[in-house]
Amino acid sequence: MTMSHPVDSQPIATAGRVVIIGSGLLGTSIALLLRSKQVEVFLHDVSPVSLALACDLGGGEPVHPHYEDENWRASIALVVVAVPPDVTASVTIDALQAYPNAVITDVASVKAPILEAVLASDADQRRYVPSHPMAGRERSGASAADQDLFRGRPWVVISHPSASRHALLTVRDLALDCGASVVNLDGNSHDQAVALISHVPQLVSSLLAARLVGAPEEALGLTGQGLRDTTRIANSDPRLWTSIICGNRGPIAEVLKGFAADLQTLIAGLEAPAQPEFIDPIAAPACVGAVNAAMQAGNDGAARIPGKHGGAPRRWAVVAVLVPDKPGELGRLFTDVGAVGVNIEDFSMDHSAYQKVGTAYLSVDPAQASEAERELSQRGWRIAKQ
Amino acid sequence: MTMSHPVDSQPIATAGRVVIIGSGLLGTSIALLLRSKQVEVFLHDVSPVSLALACDLGGGEPVHPHYEDENWRASIALVVVAVPPDVTASVTIDALQAYPNAVITDVASVKAPILEAVLASDADQRRYVPSHPMAGRERSGASAADQDLFRGRPWVVISHPSASRHALLTVRDLALDCGASVVNLDGNSHDQAVALISHVPQLVSSLLAARLVGAPEEALGLTGQGLRDTTRIANSDPRLWTSIICGNRGPIAEVLKGFAADLQTLIAGLEAPAQPEFIDPIAAPACVGAVNAAMQAGNDGAARIPGKHGGAPRRWAVVAVLVPDKPGELGRLFTDVGAVGVNIEDFSMDHSAYQKVGTAYLSVDPAQASEAERELSQRGWRIAKQ
Repeated sequence: MTMSHPVDSQPIATAGRVVIIGSGLLGTSIALLLRSKQVEVFLHDVSPVSLALACDLGGGEPVHPHYEDENWRASIALVVVAVPPDVTASVTIDALQAYPNAVITDVASVKAPILEAVLASDADQRRYVPSHPMAGRERSGASAADQDLFRGRPWVVISHPSASRHALLTVRDLALDCGASVVNLDGNSHDQAVALISHVPQLVSSLLAARLVGAPEEALGLTGQGLRDTTRIANSDPRLWTSIICGNRGPIAEVLKGFAADLQTLIAGLEAPAQPEFIDPIAAPACVGAVNAAMQAGNDGAARIPGKHGGAPRRWAVVAVLVPDKPGELGRLFTDVGAVGVNIEDFSMDHSAYQKVGTAYLSVDPAQASEAERELSQRGWRIAKQ
Repeated sequence: MTMSHPVDSQPIATAGRVVIIGSGLLGTSIALLLRSKQVEVFLHDVSPVSLALACDLGGGEPVHPHYEDENWRASIALVVVAVPPDVTASVTIDALQAYPNAVITDVASVKAPILEAVLASDADQRRYVPSHPMAGRERSGASAADQDLFRGRPWVVISHPSASRHALLTVRDLALDCGASVVNLDGNSHDQAVALISHVPQLVSSLLAARLVGAPEEALGLTGQGLRDTTRIANSDPRLWTSIICGNRGPIAEVLKGFAADLQTLIAGLEAPAQPEFIDPIAAPACVGAVNAAMQAGNDGAARIPGKHGGAPRRWAVVAVLVPDKPGELGRLFTDVGAVGVNIEDFSMDHSAYQKVGTAYLSVDPAQASEAERELSQRGWRIAKQ
């Protein structure tokens, strides 16, 4: 075997009957993982078609009406509420009442307003622990489900004073059993964090891409990697994201207002009149100062983004290889890189609209970079300078 | 040989003595390419150290004082002005006067104000054709120079009514000789285009990353691929970009004002009061409408970005492979992908802060996708669903 499957080979802690309400991407992915561990899973969805699909994929059996007797409901150990954010609070409250012995978690991407609504209800709050597995993809629905969806991803578990120790440990175990890393936060910290690192980048990317709607064709032809990177997530599903963003609109608006203030300062600098003592209009001091401040703050903010595993970004040497845009070339590069035998930490490619040649960037141990360059050169590859 | 070198094996059109003023990244890269074709190249730079480095790298010989006699200057066929935007106009005007028979081009990233300044001068405008090779990298200076820098990239050539046919063809030949694709635009169209597709994305990325400066550590730990992609170019050099952006501040301010107006509309929607007839505050109609409009416009704009070679984005099947984050795994994947022998069109990787496993995305011919998945599975790789 080329790779090990640590999750598969380990016993899991989640035990007893599990009900999953909502058979979309997240609900079905959790169901598939639990089913692969022989956990008894029952699925429910307002859409009979979605439910049938999730069951057909192996996610479990449906919650049939004849199961809805008191004894069966009392036998459920865990309920996962995996429905859209705008109905999560009411479905959670209903579930706490319907399953009197179950621990209930929800996996919605917004936490504080839902927790608040549940705490304000008559439901047994000790058995409720909100959570948020930070795993998504461009496609949604049961057909995109994958038992490996959560592997290595953060899964935020929200503690609150009413929650029982048993409920907290049960939800933590579910996250760990799915291969995720548990992150403990309170609801408000979670919502502010995801506004900043997920929801605002999504909206900024969409607003940036929206500027292209009326752009001349000739301008789009000059597109390079920078525009491609900054607008990649502008392709996300509007229906799904509208629900996510409206659910967290307070914290998002706060971050966007800070962004808008910086933007106005920058625009004012760009529009500052040239000063006569500077002959060249490019060197207007107000413009230079505002642009430089924005660029510098961007450097400072970007430097705070951690590398893999939550640590500081690690330094790798980058070997850049020119790859002619012909069938088979990239596969041939892979063969040669494999044959050279250096450790590759990361791999990316750069294309531009007019390019007949791409650049492949291999991140390697700095101690092996020269060797990699020499070996690839000997195999006929052209190394681009970095 | 694994790859062919079409540029190297072809004769070039650029002939005669060439002077390159400015031995930074672009000037030295052009010099290296021309020297590799045995063109006689003379370099000039205000910094003796930069000049010495460019010459040492093989970019040509310095313009010595004793060359500065009238006959020598009259023998120069082409002058490339490759200095920062804020001094390009004055250096270009001086060059037109100093080299009476040379065609002059500049390679600054802003075009209209420079062309305007040259046309307003007494210099011989027939011999001047502005241009802009759209090739850059994160590093600058002669030490980052590369004769392959322009390969497959757009090189914008700016025609104007005073330019001679000879001058236009000479500059076009230079771009083609460097392996670039020639794009013909007027100065204003160029400046508006690069504002939209390069300068505004840079500033938006910097403003977004700047929001992270005061963010709690715990929020940064949740960072995913979306934030990484949208802030990658926020790492760019503030000094270089301040000069580029101030040189094109009018067109940039126009685009940013449109962006700011959309942003204010969005913030107003996010802050719209909930309406009592909708029980759930998430479903406030004004919020839903504003967010959905922004997301949809982002989809529409992103769809206009051309794929490679300027065409519409081509559809590829994506095979996603889970790669354990252990030394040697990515290299082993490369070997196996090479052995499978399918055509790989593109390759990218996905990491998150807490991840102990990465996902590699291979773009392949849809007809070969199943085969690739089957072959890789047989070699022990876990295929993630898309």
